[in-house]
Amino acid sequence: MRRVPYLLVAGLVPLAAWLVARPFIDASPPTFPVLSVSLGFALVAFAATVALIPGLAPAFARAGLKGRDLLKPDSTLEIPESIGLISASVYILLLIVFIPFLFADALRPSKIAEEKTPLTEVASRPFPHQQLSAYLSALLSLYTATLLGFLDDVFDIRWRHKLPIPIVASVPMLIVYFADGGITSVVVPTPLRPYLGQIVDLGALYYVYMAMVSTFCTNSINILAGINGLEVSQALIIALSIAANDLLYLPWRFTGAEWSAGMAYGSVALVERHLLSLYFMLPLIGVCAGLLYHNRHPASVFPGDTLCYFTGMAFAVVGILGHFSKTLLLFFIPQAFNFILSAPQLFGLVPCPRHRVPRVDRKTLLLSPSVAQFERPPSTLATLVLRIFAALRLTRLTTHPHTGVIMEATNLTVLNMLLLWTGPIREATLVWACVALQFAGSVVAFTVRYGLAGLVYDGDRR
Amino acid sequence: MRRVPYLLVAGLVPLAAWLVARPFIDASPPTFPVLSVSLGFALVAFAATVALIPGLAPAFARAGLKGRDLLKPDSTLEIPESIGLISASVYILLLIVFIPFLFADALRPSKIAEEKTPLTEVASRPFPHQQLSAYLSALLSLYTATLLGFLDDVFDIRWRHKLPIPIVASVPMLIVYFADGGITSVVVPTPLRPYLGQIVDLGALYYVYMAMVSTFCTNSINILAGINGLEVSQALIIALSIAANDLLYLPWRFTGAEWSAGMAYGSVALVERHLLSLYFMLPLIGVCAGLLYHNRHPASVFPGDTLCYFTGMAFAVVGILGHFSKTLLLFFIPQAFNFILSAPQLFGLVPCPRHRVPRVDRKTLLLSPSVAQFERPPSTLATLVLRIFAALRLTRLTTHPHTGVIMEATNLTVLNMLLLWTGPIREATLVWACVALQFAGSVVAFTVRYGLAGLVYDGDRR
Repeated sequence: MRRVPYLLVAGLVPLAAWLVARPFIDASPPTFPVLSVSLGFALVAFAATVALIPGLAPAFARAGLKGRDLLKPDSTLEIPESIGLISASVYILLLIVFIPFLFADALRPSKIAEEKTPLTEVASRPFPHQQLSAYLSALLSLYTATLLGFLDDVFDIRWRHKLPIPIVASVPMLIVYFADGGITSVVVPTPLRPYLGQIVDLGALYYVYMAMVSTFCTNSINILAGINGLEVSQALIIALSIAANDLLYLPWRFTGAEWSAGMAYGSVALVERHLLSLYFMLPLIGVCAGLLYHNRHPASVFPGDTLCYFTGMAFAVVGILGHFSKTLLLFFIPQAFNFILSAPQLFGLVPCPRHRVPRVDRKTLLLSPSVAQFERPPSTLATLVLRIFAALRLTRLTTHPHTGVIMEATNLTVLNMLLLWTGPIREATLVWACVALQFAGSVVAFTVRYGLAGLVYDGDRR
Repeated sequence: MRRVPYLLVAGLVPLAAWLVARPFIDASPPTFPVLSVSLGFALVAFAATVALIPGLAPAFARAGLKGRDLLKPDSTLEIPESIGLISASVYILLLIVFIPFLFADALRPSKIAEEKTPLTEVASRPFPHQQLSAYLSALLSLYTATLLGFLDDVFDIRWRHKLPIPIVASVPMLIVYFADGGITSVVVPTPLRPYLGQIVDLGALYYVYMAMVSTFCTNSINILAGINGLEVSQALIIALSIAANDLLYLPWRFTGAEWSAGMAYGSVALVERHLLSLYFMLPLIGVCAGLLYHNRHPASVFPGDTLCYFTGMAFAVVGILGHFSKTLLLFFIPQAFNFILSAPQLFGLVPCPRHRVPRVDRKTLLLSPSVAQFERPPSTLATLVLRIFAALRLTRLTTHPHTGVIMEATNLTVLNMLLLWTGPIREATLVWACVALQFAGSVVAFTVRYGLAGLVYDGDRR
């Protein structure tokens, strides 16, 4: 078990306290007082997660929640699993304690009325009261995802039965969205407007779409897993990308002048949505970073499915409540690619072994792709798909020397694909390759969103 | 494992569907349309719990959630534990699905405006929008209680560490209560009004009081446990008592005339509060009855701590949000008595063995009181308390034949006390004795509330 970095934790606590207290005591409060509180909560989230895990993890192992790390020299050693539950608990508890700050009298306009400018005024307005129900419904969805994720860890639900879990978890949010008379119309891309008009009301289909977003965000992280720190790293980079995107919409004051990345186009609603998104993302970054400290290679704890469920649901929540689900999905490019790559195995076209993690050479500790073996010759469709994948260097096939029939293929995951490209590398190197891939995905996402989207959408961003 | 009563379940489903659909299709809708829906949900709750338990319980046992039934001939047989989680999941899911019905357009006044009378009008008004946040916060508290209860079952938390769990679970409700500017003033009993005035604002103390109510409701059921079906029976009778109390506040129409038990005194707020309480209690009665079917003597499943936590929190929620916490506590007379009786053992005055359940004669299957033995002579205070308890026939002491020093005492619980009074009886008989006690407690509660409370309170029931 990795040690708690007590010096770091002890240093963060006063900093966090200052960030939380600053809007209440500072004569010239920060531009976004509640955001300062949220940043303080993010530091508390990190400190609490980092400090709690070593103390609580042994109880998980004692309760049978433990797993073997198959890629290590001693693969009999069992490591506490499902530790994402600690992150989730800290996260949800902090989001609950955060509620009064959204309403705090001291953060209301009267206090800083004299300095307000048209857009920064938004930040100092009281949290819209009707948004409380949206916030609470988001918490209910996060709770459902956490509980179901933990049940999955305890009862080890088969993956086909797991698919509907995120749909169940998104029900609270969707129901409150419905009961509150939520918007179900979308802006039509400019090329399609002659046919569909500027806005089209999807009605019930919009709820199906939102449930699909939750399902995708949750399961796609769960599928791209298997090496130390990978799930947490993905969640962390996606959360950082969403937060970076949110910051683009906030107007900032520097030395009296107002500066803005200009994405809010003067819209108060956009600023509010992205502030709300930040209130969810900053503490999430905190708990993920705290877990990564103990889960990074060589891992002393495993996150379990709990982590994938609650982080995925957190992403879905901000995308849906913030009305930027399309942008959100752009941050999942590596996961979407992994899902498409995995589809032939997930849907039974190609045999799918229980574990698809790369295999390890116990002497050199170098990883190489694991393979799926065909007990009978693949169908014509499977052969076609595999040949195309092989031509694109996404998989490597072993064929019968005489008949040319495919006998085995490397498992269809991004991890095995990366190993095909790099040759045998160590686990830590592969993790870094994945992190680089995720980061590159976010760079592409920002380019598409702010470079190319202008070609099919105008400024109307409802 | 007891069989599912398929005929009963099959009969209940169409009845439930009719109750839910009736307000939408009936030309003359029922007096309280949403209450009809809630009653339908209660039947679904019962049917779902009864039908799901036999299928899901084996998975609990496989995951290590199982326990021995010590009072049976074969005490090595292990029975699935923590099955309260199934009740809790069905309950919370139904409460979430219930949300749109609180807002359904079809249930709004325009539809039945022509028939309304001053008080029944309340029932047909739209659910007050600001109450949605209260409802959602109640769900969050129920979720927290469920998750913590299940964690307790999985990790087997020591009971001293368990005490604060309900406080944590009540945080969401208290925080939303605070953020919404909740009332913290109470009506002063008439004899004290010359000193304190008619109303006194307790401020922060009121939050402490609410947290204490949650803690008491939750732990007091958990402490009075140990024989088949006891926890569920307690929860069921308390829920039925609360529902019966709620019904006293509703105005009813019979053959065109309005009848009322008269407790609402024409107050719209009182009718609304007790309707909300019914929406929580009716499905709770359903899931508890469903669990009791399988947990009754001889039990085929155990409820686990999960049951005590989520039912206790449900009681606290309606008592706090409905502003009738004093009445609520009256329904806990047997639990309060058991708590006072147990206090010397809980607080270390008298030795407390790990299990305090009665002991069984394996041949006759008759139960007799279990005892706590003193390794060293009890303190003067402990001796005094035990002598008083013994004089009241609450415990039986064994003293040293020569010195008269207390050597052992029957464990200080209601179960052992009842066995002292009845002599050796079978487990099923003892369960019925406890049920009768709980029922008698509710009769006393109603007498005190509506007979004696008039002596110290006037009609002012804020």
